[in-house]
Amino acid sequence: MSTSSNTITIKPLNAQAFKNYGDVIETEGAHSFKINNGLCTRYHDLAKIEVSGPKARPLISLVKSMPYTLPLTLTMVERHPLGSQAFVPLSNKPFLIIVCDDHDGVPGTPCAFVSSNQQGINIAQNVWHGVLTPLDGMSDFLVIDRGGEGNNLEEYFFEEPFILVAR
Amino acid sequence: MSTSSNTITIKPLNAQAFKNYGDVIETEGAHSFKINNGLCTRYHDLAKIEVSGPKARPLISLVKSMPYTLPLTLTMVERHPLGSQAFVPLSNKPFLIIVCDDHDGVPGTPCAFVSSNQQGINIAQNVWHGVLTPLDGMSDFLVIDRGGEGNNLEEYFFEEPFILVAR
Repeated sequence: MSTSSNTITIKPLNAQAFKNYGDVIETEGAHSFKINNGLCTRYHDLAKIEVSGPKARPLISLVKSMPYTLPLTLTMVERHPLGSQAFVPLSNKPFLIIVCDDHDGVPGTPCAFVSSNQQGINIAQNVWHGVLTPLDGMSDFLVIDRGGEGNNLEEYFFEEPFILVAR
Repeated sequence: MSTSSNTITIKPLNAQAFKNYGDVIETEGAHSFKINNGLCTRYHDLAKIEVSGPKARPLISLVKSMPYTLPLTLTMVERHPLGSQAFVPLSNKPFLIIVCDDHDGVPGTPCAFVSSNQQGINIAQNVWHGVLTPLDGMSDFLVIDRGGEGNNLEEYFFEEPFILVAR
């Protein structure tokens, strides 16, 4: 079976590959130092929290999501013009991260990454992305995103869906 | 054996008991709603992030801490006059939370709580508290606290230590 041009192969997540879209929240490669009399290591300042617009403030929330299965049919992406959005897994399970470059207000071809069990992400303000997509059963995440007034959601529906497949 | 006046019994953590010190980050009792076509439940806005002072901004960090054992000898507490500090466990393990009321700039008798495996905490700005104290092996936490300039740390050493014991 040949793959069509609408087939996207999922890659492992790493900070270098994700740098145009936001931050990978992980200890690997992070600046760290000891605290609490040496009993604790702090991996410091791993993500840029962005909140803008009227009455903007950062929020801490929890989410519980049903899993998705591969291959995944991707019909839409969204972006948040007023704030970043961080997702940190609490269940030690992988999840799928879908992001797109922006071409004059329209998302380009998606890139898809799968996290290790030890990675969270922070999607930068106004970056096109897919919804939260756990892959291995019901999964809990801590979310740090933006509260406030104003419209912080833009959605884009693709004319033809993309098919996301494992390597 | 009789317990001395310096012995503190550790209680289970709950939002009501903790309300004067900050927030318990948990799904139980939280306002929630469905997102992502009903596949995901969001437990919304569970903690008040506080950052003040020069160049203040919220930070996302990870910490890995060695465990402590009970009974615990508590010699000091600290507080952060310029920001709140949230700790969310990533290892599904309990940790100890130690807080004190303030009496004219001096910490009162400590209160000690133990988390369930499903609870994080947010310690409010300027609340006296013990350092991060996991109880069950090496433990990872996500931390959301304050970056910026200015002195954000005040420490207090007790004349006589407190002894924290399980119920």
